[in-house]
Amino acid sequence: MVQATSLPRNEAGIEAAIETLKQRFGSQLQTGQAICEQHGHTTTWIVNQAPDAVVFPTSTEEVSEIVAVCAEYGVPVIPFGTGTSLEGHVNAPAGGICIDMMRMDRIIAVHAEDLDVVVQPGVTREQLNTYLRDQGLFFPIDPGANASLGGMAATRASGTNAVRYGTMKDNVLSLEAVMADGGVIRTAQRAKKSSAGYDLTRLLVGSEGTLGLITELTLKLQGIPEAIRSARCSFRTVDEACRAVMMTIQYGIPVARIELLDALSVRAANAYSGLDLPETPLLLLEFHGSDAGVVEQTDMFASIAEEFGGFDIAATSTPEERNKLWQARHDMYWASLQLRPGAKGISTDVCVPISRLAECVGAARDKAEGMGLMAPIVGHVGDGNFHALLLIDMDSEIERRKADEFVGWLNDLAISMEGTCTGEHGIGQGKRPYLQKELGPATRYMAAVKAALDPDNIMNPGKILEM
Amino acid sequence: MVQATSLPRNEAGIEAAIETLKQRFGSQLQTGQAICEQHGHTTTWIVNQAPDAVVFPTSTEEVSEIVAVCAEYGVPVIPFGTGTSLEGHVNAPAGGICIDMMRMDRIIAVHAEDLDVVVQPGVTREQLNTYLRDQGLFFPIDPGANASLGGMAATRASGTNAVRYGTMKDNVLSLEAVMADGGVIRTAQRAKKSSAGYDLTRLLVGSEGTLGLITELTLKLQGIPEAIRSARCSFRTVDEACRAVMMTIQYGIPVARIELLDALSVRAANAYSGLDLPETPLLLLEFHGSDAGVVEQTDMFASIAEEFGGFDIAATSTPEERNKLWQARHDMYWASLQLRPGAKGISTDVCVPISRLAECVGAARDKAEGMGLMAPIVGHVGDGNFHALLLIDMDSEIERRKADEFVGWLNDLAISMEGTCTGEHGIGQGKRPYLQKELGPATRYMAAVKAALDPDNIMNPGKILEM
Repeated sequence: MVQATSLPRNEAGIEAAIETLKQRFGSQLQTGQAICEQHGHTTTWIVNQAPDAVVFPTSTEEVSEIVAVCAEYGVPVIPFGTGTSLEGHVNAPAGGICIDMMRMDRIIAVHAEDLDVVVQPGVTREQLNTYLRDQGLFFPIDPGANASLGGMAATRASGTNAVRYGTMKDNVLSLEAVMADGGVIRTAQRAKKSSAGYDLTRLLVGSEGTLGLITELTLKLQGIPEAIRSARCSFRTVDEACRAVMMTIQYGIPVARIELLDALSVRAANAYSGLDLPETPLLLLEFHGSDAGVVEQTDMFASIAEEFGGFDIAATSTPEERNKLWQARHDMYWASLQLRPGAKGISTDVCVPISRLAECVGAARDKAEGMGLMAPIVGHVGDGNFHALLLIDMDSEIERRKADEFVGWLNDLAISMEGTCTGEHGIGQGKRPYLQKELGPATRYMAAVKAALDPDNIMNPGKILEM
Repeated sequence: MVQATSLPRNEAGIEAAIETLKQRFGSQLQTGQAICEQHGHTTTWIVNQAPDAVVFPTSTEEVSEIVAVCAEYGVPVIPFGTGTSLEGHVNAPAGGICIDMMRMDRIIAVHAEDLDVVVQPGVTREQLNTYLRDQGLFFPIDPGANASLGGMAATRASGTNAVRYGTMKDNVLSLEAVMADGGVIRTAQRAKKSSAGYDLTRLLVGSEGTLGLITELTLKLQGIPEAIRSARCSFRTVDEACRAVMMTIQYGIPVARIELLDALSVRAANAYSGLDLPETPLLLLEFHGSDAGVVEQTDMFASIAEEFGGFDIAATSTPEERNKLWQARHDMYWASLQLRPGAKGISTDVCVPISRLAECVGAARDKAEGMGLMAPIVGHVGDGNFHALLLIDMDSEIERRKADEFVGWLNDLAISMEGTCTGEHGIGQGKRPYLQKELGPATRYMAAVKAALDPDNIMNPGKILEM
């Protein structure tokens, strides 16, 4: 495991805050070891740093009360949704109080005429989409996991649909948040656009709980398209697949999804999901539009793909076939683990300008092979974003070191290509050194904003910035 | 004229800063009264508050030097582009140094494969689009005026295309900025998306020069669509027109533009632009897509419009006819002034959830009529955003007072409808009280961010916040 730095603990403050909160919240506050460890970091390889207590508020007022108590005693506050973040976002390196938002799971209002919805932060994206389906609406952001919408906003999540619908930054209209002093704010009204003051909405989106705790979200919705069509296409090389992607985007084809699986990933998917795809790089696509529109888009893509040597092109509008393909895509994590039973999967994430994508993916594959690492690559390639899933024997120090070296190398490479060390996973604990490398001087002003809004550094300390 | 509050002047500091800058910049620094007044506020009705000097830098390094000098002497710095902002953004209520960015007008790099461009802040949107045309690319944000791109980012501008392409917040990938201490930062890399740290890009977009000075922008581009089709449709009432808009958006028709002109505006356009449109509320639309796609979109819109009593529907794909209609739309300001020769036009801007648009526009028209004010209304109604242009005899104190009352009433109304006091003009000096009404508690945290990034309040003081 990778050990994240511990921060000094305010023992007296933590004890006093727990005592005060216990009196106020009774059994809504839990201090058992098991529950605390469940609320520390549980994904990938950063070591678990459990909070000292977990509290389960049911309203904004309760969150505000909890933060006010923690502010009084100078005790860290760590927000928790589904715990599916990947860079140690929910660890408690200085201990403190975890606020589990999952009892705040109400869908407060659907404004179908305005194509927006107001939800509490513990609503998950699947819960929301199930609720909306009868009204012909959906929320497009899909990071794979059935994450909470509060967590998705806090980490600026995106996923397969981002190429068409944007990321959380583009789909949050307004937030309600509890700030470090317990104050409750609304960052914007419900209008579709505004030039009214600093964009606190976007400042909080992606701030990983370090500036404020999201207690309500107003999200943009989309109408379920009249027609949805899926396509797949195999390529001889990753390079050709990436060039086809670049051309598809340049032509302005409004793909809703365009996903790359490298040959190793296709092998894993065939075995795990009972598919029979050529074991070469694959693009999976989805098109949204009118009946005629999706066929037109598919045909345009197919002729581009053929130019770049694409073969075995198949398209379908029937839900069963579509779902089979996309289920296989969503199961890639589990499928990949089966490539090496017993191994731990460590997912790392970079994003580069699309003109550099072929080069970056190719280099990553060569580097992993050269190091003897098994690392299937999948990507939301329409945005230039991809993930390598390192399959590591955690008992082998050599492998752990190699994985660490690979992650560092890949982040440096992406940054050198004018890309970012994280397209969608966030900084958390794991990527703090790379944020420094990527944005250097800007991080000093980020730290100034953090110090202004959270002078005692109680909001999810030890994340994003080295403080 | 409306008098904006003056702020205390640091006479000694201003004198010393000008002396230092004069030695360094020679004739790049100007102190003549005429040039200073040209760089104070010149649009609508807020009184001109001229800076003490205007300096014309040609590089980021020079901007940084200027800010460092001003920081040393505690002297205000006011950025200036084309001076087309509408709420007193470029006034100098405490005096100081205006930084005119218009000599920083280089297009630094077009990355056609990545659909982005790197520009200096003094490049105007028309300059950029002329430059890009041969490459089949365009930058979609169109606020009407041929504004500078730096100014458009600073005020979070949008305009007619925002319903399809978003606002400046959605189309800036990255900024280079000079901060209050003279430090130069880059807010993001050139990747299409990122979760790396606080979103300083979006914090600076819309900050109106109060947090940092934009010295370079990386902007998203679009491919020029294969086909463009325009349509117009008349309605008996504003209410029916707005309902047709709402349904068009709900159906997910990807309109590129959907503009409302009320009956008074149509009368003005007929007279000024030699048109012969029915003098009732009008929608002007534009569709972008494939040849088949734009016809399909137009037909879908037409059947919706007919449901709501739309009549005299006409559509065209020929550039001449399209341009004639859109030129008339862009000339609305001048056309409206001709409704009352000699009057001053005062444009005010609100944005509401689209479900409240019909009610808000109707109430605004009734209120203006009831007050005896001539106020044609035009709007980017796909976003719920509209402007009333008050035609005022500035020599009449009664009219000025009425206009002031109307603006206040309309802003309050929009806020009461969960809308915003400004969809795209920004806060500047003029809308500060309404920002307080709109976002109340949040403005305290905006002030904390401002104080952290600009502790001596030298960056465009007296704008956005009451400080």
